[in-house]
Amino acid sequence: MRALLLYRLELSPDTDPGDAMMAVDPATPIIRATDLGVTRGDGVFETAVVRHGVPQALEAHLHRLERSAALLALPAPPLDRWRAAVRRAAAEVSHPGVLRDGEIASIKFAMTRGDELDPAAPTGWVLGFAGADPAAVRAAGVTAVVLDRGYRHDVMQTAPWLLQGAKSLAYAVNQAALREAARRGADDVVFVSADGFVLEGPRSTLIARIDGTLVTPPPEFGVLPGTTQGDVFAGLAGDRSAIVPVTREDLRRADALWLCSSTRGAVPVRALDGAPLTIDHELTARMNAVLDARED
Amino acid sequence: MRALLLYRLELSPDTDPGDAMMAVDPATPIIRATDLGVTRGDGVFETAVVRHGVPQALEAHLHRLERSAALLALPAPPLDRWRAAVRRAAAEVSHPGVLRDGEIASIKFAMTRGDELDPAAPTGWVLGFAGADPAAVRAAGVTAVVLDRGYRHDVMQTAPWLLQGAKSLAYAVNQAALREAARRGADDVVFVSADGFVLEGPRSTLIARIDGTLVTPPPEFGVLPGTTQGDVFAGLAGDRSAIVPVTREDLRRADALWLCSSTRGAVPVRALDGAPLTIDHELTARMNAVLDARED
Repeated sequence: MRALLLYRLELSPDTDPGDAMMAVDPATPIIRATDLGVTRGDGVFETAVVRHGVPQALEAHLHRLERSAALLALPAPPLDRWRAAVRRAAAEVSHPGVLRDGEIASIKFAMTRGDELDPAAPTGWVLGFAGADPAAVRAAGVTAVVLDRGYRHDVMQTAPWLLQGAKSLAYAVNQAALREAARRGADDVVFVSADGFVLEGPRSTLIARIDGTLVTPPPEFGVLPGTTQGDVFAGLAGDRSAIVPVTREDLRRADALWLCSSTRGAVPVRALDGAPLTIDHELTARMNAVLDARED
Repeated sequence: MRALLLYRLELSPDTDPGDAMMAVDPATPIIRATDLGVTRGDGVFETAVVRHGVPQALEAHLHRLERSAALLALPAPPLDRWRAAVRRAAAEVSHPGVLRDGEIASIKFAMTRGDELDPAAPTGWVLGFAGADPAAVRAAGVTAVVLDRGYRHDVMQTAPWLLQGAKSLAYAVNQAALREAARRGADDVVFVSADGFVLEGPRSTLIARIDGTLVTPPPEFGVLPGTTQGDVFAGLAGDRSAIVPVTREDLRRADALWLCSSTRGAVPVRALDGAPLTIDHELTARMNAVLDARED
């Protein structure tokens, strides 16, 4: 990963929207030691991949940012301001010569609750960065392990203060789960609930093919509504798909699995807990063709 | 809360310890948008109150910082460097004229995993701040509600990647729990495990008096080892105390409760879920006399 550009985004209603974006060197610190984003992980974020000069699935990302903010009782993000900033960043990182061979660009944008000593307005920023082109990982697939996320499947309803379903900055557990996967010799994680329902990855949405149908767990189970998975299901209208509960038992019957995310698209899982899975290269290619063709 | 001073602490082994502290204006941003502390809440912290010119229970705080870092698989914090920085900050905020009437000073210190684009060394800082003198809240007590933390009592052993027992920067859930308490008209929270064991508060350790014994739940249940609670138990040698599992049923039999934290000391709970509790002012005063007298 390599930073390409950074904008500080002023979110105070007093700031004129035309003056809201301030370009800064990505190496320059822009967050105070008293910002709730760093003292508590108290904020939300999204990452959109850039293709054709635009941030893909931007409206879906903005909608999810709004949803995460509501789950954290943050002020509603001013979507027009975010939309303009992310589009402009995507246009800039798409200029000739910005990316090196084998790189693709993504835009990460984040909003925190602001300074705990001076809670005037949320803190916002937009980061453009270069990552590895996902062509190789889409072809080779990844290995994954199943890890308990510790919560029942219904905590989003019974205990909303646990913030399940929100894409928050408090993702230390997701990082720790990825370290546990590495310790077990795997690349990634599939979380399950304490009561045995399949959830999602720490940075991806799961799609499983079970009995010929592509399935993914429902957002009500505290998983993020997958922007990438949503576009896969919409784009593969000829394939059967469903948003349904998936148990650990169901997962054993799956004959193909994918982890979907904005930056990498649909990545097949070639082994789960050490048990090999067949990669359906043809279907994986069709999924990613749908994704890469999106113009917004 | 009011910021008094800020030090950036260099944690690279290449930096000479004598040059490690760099004073900055607390209003100056010191954290990059690509620091894992803010992108993932991937870091640890401690807060020590200052009395008699020194940070109280500093060794216990340093020990817990080390423990939290180990739970997050962070590099071991260079304790000598942290000790010197926190002591120097405590001495500075104790200079005459720094605090206003009705304020006390505390030192918060934090360490993140560092920059995700340039993972050379952890990021560290030491913040001195003024808060309200806790005398009033110690006398009046607080109201609290019981909230489910969603995890079983044993996840620290069965699922260590959930990071229970670590004082991490990913505390958005703790903030959300405090907002839920406010919605219910209460000041604070007592977390319980999904399987009915009493745990701790979002920013405090619980002490309950049950059948004449002061009890607190064991750290193995994924609660922080309370530096303040530890000194209360050690200082009240004449009172019976025990670190034992406490169930929700046990809690109903408690005739007094306290929430203990560095900045406020032992604060009595005057109502739990709306049911009044008697404040034992005499014992509360003895607890806080022990705490306030500490010289390290």
